Amino acid sequence: MSRLDQQMAFLTEVDRLKSVLRATTLCDGSRMENSAEHSWHIALYALVLAEHAETPLDTAKVIKMLLLHDLVEIDAGDAPVFGTHDTEALAVQEQAAAIRIFGLLPDDQAQAFRALWDEFEANESPEAQFAKSIDRMQPPMQNLASGGGSWIDYDVTQNMFETRIGPKINTGAPKIWAWLQPKVAAFFAGRG
Amino acid sequence: MSRLDQQMAFLTEVDRLKSVLRATTLCDGSRMENSAEHSWHIALYALVLAEHAETPLDTAKVIKMLLLHDLVEIDAGDAPVFGTHDTEALAVQEQAAAIRIFGLLPDDQAQAFRALWDEFEANESPEAQFAKSIDRMQPPMQNLASGGGSWIDYDVTQNMFETRIGPKINTGAPKIWAWLQPKVAAFFAGRG
Ligand SMILES: [Ca+2]
Repeated sequence: MSRLDQQMAFLTEVDRLKSVLRATTLCDGSRMENSAEHSWHIALYALVLAEHAETPLDTAKVIKMLLLHDLVEIDAGDAPVFGTHDTEALAVQEQAAAIRIFGLLPDDQAQAFRALWDEFEANESPEAQFAKSIDRMQPPMQNLASGGGSWIDYDVTQNMFETRIGPKINTGAPKIWAWLQPKVAAFFAGRG
Repeated sequence: MSRLDQQMAFLTEVDRLKSVLRATTLCDGSRMENSAEHSWHIALYALVLAEHAETPLDTAKVIKMLLLHDLVEIDAGDAPVFGTHDTEALAVQEQAAAIRIFGLLPDDQAQAFRALWDEFEANESPEAQFAKSIDRMQPPMQNLASGGGSWIDYDVTQNMFETRIGPKINTGAPKIWAWLQPKVAAFFAGRG
């Protein structure tokens, strides 16, 4: 196979991310969101919101991470954040998925993409922390727009949200969390 | 409205791109593709394929252009390349859409995003030409994978494809056109 043959095989295979459904709906609630359009949406979130990070970011790297971050779901599926799943088994599936899917590319690109995904997963660099925080704040934005979405489906309370999600948004994007938190609190207060 | 209020209003509004359907299907033919997931897919095409451009590119700029390039479709709709539409009327609709949608952002970002979209549409810089070529080569890739797709729906012949699409791919990505052309020719030859 030529280099282009390998690259095109990868680009055709990743089309399957469009068929991986998430726990969130579109903002109008009309259907479940898929992981490909979600990846586009949060890349755009990063482009618009990078200025609010605590340290200057390599925005292009954040965007690349976000374009790639869910590809392992093609094999491992999407694990809803408020669902129950075997964390260790999922990690094993995702590692195998990364090897298979990035492995379709020429070696140098496979290694570069894998390094970006590993950096995202490690959640240590400023770019990874911002990307992870953005990835956590897009679902609540969808839920606020649609009137509850996955919060209702998974019986989420304000306390669950503030304990499990808030700190993850706050880590990489405290200014954005400060903006979002009162809106989420008002939503849950309104449900009584 | 605060700066974050404006940015979040924009990010919520662009969710509607997930409901704009294109003339192409997913690679497995299971449903029509939408413009948001298409935008993700070609951003990834650009990341993987930028090395095949004729001159070194600012890949981050290409990716930003592609994340934004279809936003005007939220108001103006997707105009299938082999469909019939009033080119002038569509251009007017797209200009109005750009003003409304980018106008949701703070002024400096509205201007920066508009400049990227204008550069893409002008199709003159190496980045715009490569982005446009990638945007033209993803649908034939989907059609080859699904067994015909929009080529069958729009009664496209090899001659129509090579006359109307080939030159547009060749402009910004001649090496990629050289790879794709024989595959498309073989598809049409096989249909007799
Ligand atoms: Ca397009």
